Amino acid sequence: MSQTDKPRVIVVGAGGVGVIAALSLYTHGTADVSLVVRSDFDHVSADGYHIDSCDYGLLQGWKPHHLFRTVEDAAKSGTFFDYVVITTKNIPDGPEHSRVENIARPLVLSNNSIGPARTSNILLIQNGIDIEKPLLKEFPQDKFNYSLLSGIEFLGSTKVGKGRISHIGSEKLFVGAFQQEDQRARKAAEEYVAMYHNEGKNHCEVDPRVRHSRWNKLLYNAAINTTTALIGLDVPRALEFGAGAAEGHSSTEFDIIKPAMREVIAIAASEGIVLDPASIDFFTDISRNLMFTPSMCVDSQKGQLMELEVILGNPIRVAKEHNVPTPILSMLYNLLILLQGKLKEANGLLQFDEEACRVVR
Amino acid sequence: MSQTDKPRVIVVGAGGVGVIAALSLYTHGTADVSLVVRSDFDHVSADGYHIDSCDYGLLQGWKPHHLFRTVEDAAKSGTFFDYVVITTKNIPDGPEHSRVENIARPLVLSNNSIGPARTSNILLIQNGIDIEKPLLKEFPQDKFNYSLLSGIEFLGSTKVGKGRISHIGSEKLFVGAFQQEDQRARKAAEEYVAMYHNEGKNHCEVDPRVRHSRWNKLLYNAAINTTTALIGLDVPRALEFGAGAAEGHSSTEFDIIKPAMREVIAIAASEGIVLDPASIDFFTDISRNLMFTPSMCVDSQKGQLMELEVILGNPIRVAKEHNVPTPILSMLYNLLILLQGKLKEANGLLQFDEEACRVVR
Repeated sequence: MSQTDKPRVIVVGAGGVGVIAALSLYTHGTADVSLVVRSDFDHVSADGYHIDSCDYGLLQGWKPHHLFRTVEDAAKSGTFFDYVVITTKNIPDGPEHSRVENIARPLVLSNNSIGPARTSNILLIQNGIDIEKPLLKEFPQDKFNYSLLSGIEFLGSTKVGKGRISHIGSEKLFVGAFQQEDQRARKAAEEYVAMYHNEGKNHCEVDPRVRHSRWNKLLYNAAINTTTALIGLDVPRALEFGAGAAEGHSSTEFDIIKPAMREVIAIAASEGIVLDPASIDFFTDISRNLMFTPSMCVDSQKGQLMELEVILGNPIRVAKEHNVPTPILSMLYNLLILLQGKLKEANGLLQFDEEACRVVR
Repeated sequence: MSQTDKPRVIVVGAGGVGVIAALSLYTHGTADVSLVVRSDFDHVSADGYHIDSCDYGLLQGWKPHHLFRTVEDAAKSGTFFDYVVITTKNIPDGPEHSRVENIARPLVLSNNSIGPARTSNILLIQNGIDIEKPLLKEFPQDKFNYSLLSGIEFLGSTKVGKGRISHIGSEKLFVGAFQQEDQRARKAAEEYVAMYHNEGKNHCEVDPRVRHSRWNKLLYNAAINTTTALIGLDVPRALEFGAGAAEGHSSTEFDIIKPAMREVIAIAASEGIVLDPASIDFFTDISRNLMFTPSMCVDSQKGQLMELEVILGNPIRVAKEHNVPTPILSMLYNLLILLQGKLKEANGLLQFDEEACRVVR
């Protein structure tokens, strides 16, 4: 059977998440799979991927059906993509070209031009809350005829070198409609899950309440990910270096992380989403005994921008709208924005004039 | 005239502050000056100091009257020191030997043994609040017959290499009695100022209300020094990278530094010390336009322990005793203690077992 009879899926972003997404779809065999591989394009085109995967075994020279160097190249290919799966970091305060609406733009426009009457789907496998808003604003759904899907990924997979992926933690992916009432998106989520799930290998299920799931994941990310990023420590050290840790009452746990999580619960509640407070102990307890460095901490240690706005800025904006006090989260944010500024300066995204003591705007 | 007729002063700590202290006393000529030079002893013994000083000009091969490698050596010299001037960093949570009471011990004991009836004086030229308490506890004044003096130093002086001091900001030193009612200490402060002041060169004056002055300096140190240390940025960048800085309303200024200073004012007020709230704007405004990296930030960037407990831990302990809420200062403290832990681990003062995910205690 020709690949052209199958739904065409393009995965954008070839890090630990993107490559495993492409591999999962490819393995199941019911989709035509494209991958946008920016920095490793030449290497992967020639030699394919070397993937050491807890779910799929050791693969050498693996490639999806199609490789593209850029989203622009993919758009120019003349292909209508049924699913545009975006797995890049979501950094709205980063460089223009890296914003999610700008990453999606060439594909949204080419899809619309190739098949204006056909429905496509955009799936964001990314952290944070309110990440769908810039897309919906930039590309009205009635005009561009697409549905918008949320992916929440639990996956231990890292790009460890050119074309090399180390996948050590089995995948769990939750896919659902960003807008709960959107029947078309809900159907698409079911289709995607069916296409993605590989029995006995990965785990993929429909997420019937996307915003609830995203707030729940923010319990961890807004409280723990942020704290470790600020200090540059893995989670167990951040807990153990706190005052009073020897007496079982670490200031990190009781004065930062848990109060921060309670603030997230209060913000979610202000928009009618009831999170289970048992998650506070759950997230803290799994963190205590597992050597793990969360993503914002990894990014900042690599000198890369952090997903600060979608993980912490957006929740705080919701809190402000609803008059929910967030003393701990706001302090973390006000400090992390300085670290983000430092990373921006190091990446040439911001200039500081030491004579004038001012940012050059 | 033999040096032996003059008061004998020993300066402990040969960094930017200690060397200028020894030089100021030496220049005035009314004291016999010893300096404890730990790491640079061999170099300075042979070649003396190279000092480029805004107050004293360019000096090559300068030495005080006596050099010692350690306080133990000085104690063994058989000299009674009228003034023991301690200019080391004050880090009560640092290694045992570096704690102020352990630095002073050999000299307190030798003074007491050489001249039990003679009064000596200990002058702490160090940051923070409640720094006199460990000394008073360890060495009861009636038994060891000494008075305790406070020095607050405003000085731009840095050790820039072996035996090399760059002194770019003119010195202002304030000396007073830690215990305001202690007449003996007040008299000693006057004597020290007379001995230290070099007309037309440095500035030295008696500080009639030591605790007030220390709280006032903490406005800067507890709020601004701490914030920059946490983030690893100089002060102007920390202000300018804040959210809203472009609109003249930097989150660093309005949500961290100024609220933190107001908390310091409230803590001081809880023990009857009324600070001038105009200092809040004063300290912020001088900081805004001066490229400067405060001491805790410099220390942490050098991988050295920070003066966290005397600058932030002790004020918070006073606040707790008096039920003064300190949400901003406590958050800074709870985060900085993690950074301090990271520095302790890097310096081998703390071991973390990654298997057990626990500090080895």
